[in-house]
Amino acid sequence: MPRSVPGRIKASYWIETPLDPHRAAEAMAGEQSSGTFLKLARETDELRDRHAAQVDSVTQLTTADTPSLPGAMPGEVYHRANITLSWPTINVGTSLPNLMATVLGNLTELRELSGIRLSRLALPDEFLEAHPGPRFSITGTRQLTGCNEGPLIGTIIKPSVGLTPEETAELVGELIEAGIDFIKDDELIANPPYSPLAKRVPAVMRVINDYAQRTGRKPMYAFNITGDIDEMRRQHDLVVEHEGTCVMASMNWIGLASLQALSQHTSVPIHGHRNGWGLFYRSPSIGIDYPAYQTLLRLAGADHLHVNGLGSKFAEADASVIDSATACLTPLLHRSERDDRAMPVFSSAQTVHQASNTFKALGSTDLIYTCGGGIMGHPNGVAAGCRSIRAAWAAAASGTPLGEHAHQEPDLEVALRAFASPFSG
Amino acid sequence: MPRSVPGRIKASYWIETPLDPHRAAEAMAGEQSSGTFLKLARETDELRDRHAAQVDSVTQLTTADTPSLPGAMPGEVYHRANITLSWPTINVGTSLPNLMATVLGNLTELRELSGIRLSRLALPDEFLEAHPGPRFSITGTRQLTGCNEGPLIGTIIKPSVGLTPEETAELVGELIEAGIDFIKDDELIANPPYSPLAKRVPAVMRVINDYAQRTGRKPMYAFNITGDIDEMRRQHDLVVEHEGTCVMASMNWIGLASLQALSQHTSVPIHGHRNGWGLFYRSPSIGIDYPAYQTLLRLAGADHLHVNGLGSKFAEADASVIDSATACLTPLLHRSERDDRAMPVFSSAQTVHQASNTFKALGSTDLIYTCGGGIMGHPNGVAAGCRSIRAAWAAAASGTPLGEHAHQEPDLEVALRAFASPFSG
Repeated sequence: MPRSVPGRIKASYWIETPLDPHRAAEAMAGEQSSGTFLKLARETDELRDRHAAQVDSVTQLTTADTPSLPGAMPGEVYHRANITLSWPTINVGTSLPNLMATVLGNLTELRELSGIRLSRLALPDEFLEAHPGPRFSITGTRQLTGCNEGPLIGTIIKPSVGLTPEETAELVGELIEAGIDFIKDDELIANPPYSPLAKRVPAVMRVINDYAQRTGRKPMYAFNITGDIDEMRRQHDLVVEHEGTCVMASMNWIGLASLQALSQHTSVPIHGHRNGWGLFYRSPSIGIDYPAYQTLLRLAGADHLHVNGLGSKFAEADASVIDSATACLTPLLHRSERDDRAMPVFSSAQTVHQASNTFKALGSTDLIYTCGGGIMGHPNGVAAGCRSIRAAWAAAASGTPLGEHAHQEPDLEVALRAFASPFSG
Repeated sequence: MPRSVPGRIKASYWIETPLDPHRAAEAMAGEQSSGTFLKLARETDELRDRHAAQVDSVTQLTTADTPSLPGAMPGEVYHRANITLSWPTINVGTSLPNLMATVLGNLTELRELSGIRLSRLALPDEFLEAHPGPRFSITGTRQLTGCNEGPLIGTIIKPSVGLTPEETAELVGELIEAGIDFIKDDELIANPPYSPLAKRVPAVMRVINDYAQRTGRKPMYAFNITGDIDEMRRQHDLVVEHEGTCVMASMNWIGLASLQALSQHTSVPIHGHRNGWGLFYRSPSIGIDYPAYQTLLRLAGADHLHVNGLGSKFAEADASVIDSATACLTPLLHRSERDDRAMPVFSSAQTVHQASNTFKALGSTDLIYTCGGGIMGHPNGVAAGCRSIRAAWAAAASGTPLGEHAHQEPDLEVALRAFASPFSG
């Protein structure tokens, strides 16, 4: 599919239908532009020429004997197909929420479909240019952390809930002394009464600012400011006031319009947490592929985007993780003055073992690699854990087998023995 | 499940798991409060007592031979169960986005589950009281329209896209002269260049205000102001400036936090459009039941909530439509001074035929009943169409069979013959 055709918004889907797939595609185009079950007086040919969605392509795949989703029209057989529809940009303007209402909206409910996944979005340059995109992206994140090569080595405050601001700050002190580049709040803690941001931010930033002054290195802490809009703006200001360098939000629960509002306000990178995303990828029969949705999240201003990790504890397939991360690293608008990539965040049960496969598949170290147990569980402590991850990535980036590189890196050698590989057996 | 237990947030789920369902429920509780794959130094027993999610109930259902969703741990058999978990409110505070991160968040990705649907939410009074809820609800909507009994008879501007502001206003004039109570923009039109709200609002409201002055009856028009936050606030102000009485937003695409922001600002009812909701109900294996999510939408401020309709053109089962509408009409907080119900909006291929079954199932006429073809397609015109729908609801509410009532209502008689019933055959 061409990335951008002037004037038209293109959306690609996997569909399953009891109808001829061409007819189903026409029904989708009708429903999402000028269709109703009755011919209307004002629906002129001219109006249709100007506004109708059109079917750009239909590629038939296999068929199935039973429908993947309930509620569809009955059929003798269910045809699967990849299709692309397009709309004139004039129908939507350049609004992200309205784009979603147009390219997905009621399609998920059509009885003509027994399966639908939105797989790709291609937006014309005029649409992309209406959105500034990530304010910091990879370049800005590297500048703020002084971490100029390799992935940012990150971790998450655990236990996820229950620590006081003072306990959190104490833990942060241990983590940054051990060499961590990036620390984030868990998505389960935002501004609860036992650890309000009004206390957590100053407590944590005191430790980080002291360390930065002492060493010249300033690790990034992503404070989870998820909340209502005014609250997020206030909490952002609090973070900035205390010289914090990152804010985090649960994107799926605040929503696109709020992410945009935060982006218009922010002066630090936005760490986009995608908890709840399983709702959209877990069923092969209905949902959204992340390569499509991350386009909107970046246009709305997310600088970092979670993508899970290889061999994770979650249900996502490794190939899907890599597709997502590759999409995040692919520029939307090809302009030299604009870096609209997002920095993919790998997480969930990551250890030294995933570095090499991740690098091979992605061909980049422009990412945040967060480990919990994979760093904290190192037999020789957190600093050794942190060094072992960095060594694993150095080996990966230079194409040296891990086992070989481990001869010169005792922390890596210990880690290789201590953690089971998710790829073996 | 009790509606409200002081201090704890309760969430119920349908799950499918290769594990013993009790063990799966424990894994869910761990993941969403203090779990990681390593025992942590700071995870004290005291912390766990204060913050751990707990399993309140597990009711085993049937088993399946194959998993409903891919990516789950392998098992010999997959157990289905209804379970309830609970959390201390202190973990979350009273934030809606953070509530979702806690009760759903990463659960959708767990390999311990091959199916998960969030089915019900029960929030403690202290949580409910932190949110004003719908500003207008049913009472306010009836006051604004002067429509004191029976459903509001509504329709949608069609064609969905392409009409100019003047054409829209002209159509509105015909519709209100015909007796319509409520008109809405389609979700496919918000603020596009060919019909900007800056022109559509004054054009439409001139017609409505003239009519109101002449007749004393003021139909409600829901302008689709879906967009970014500042834009929605501005467009709301424009609507109010022109004496408009309703604004509409695509709730799933603006998100919870933006709905809240709009609610804090609004001085007219918010018409909550749920396009995209098929993503959450269409698969029986993963998603959210509307009775759970509508709780949050009402707390975020939605006054009207779409629920589809009986015998609609969409894939949702009739029982699910009624469950959703019943939930919308059930008060959250039982306080005499507060009306926190939402007015359910029935739509999609509705005609005279659905009135009786809808009333029987719901026991209420506190709803908006929108018809497109079911009014516009009446052989004797729009006014006859509108009268026929009102007559059908009068028959329904008085328990008179439609055919019998039609003897005194010629418009109803014609409509009964003109439209096929979705319930026959």
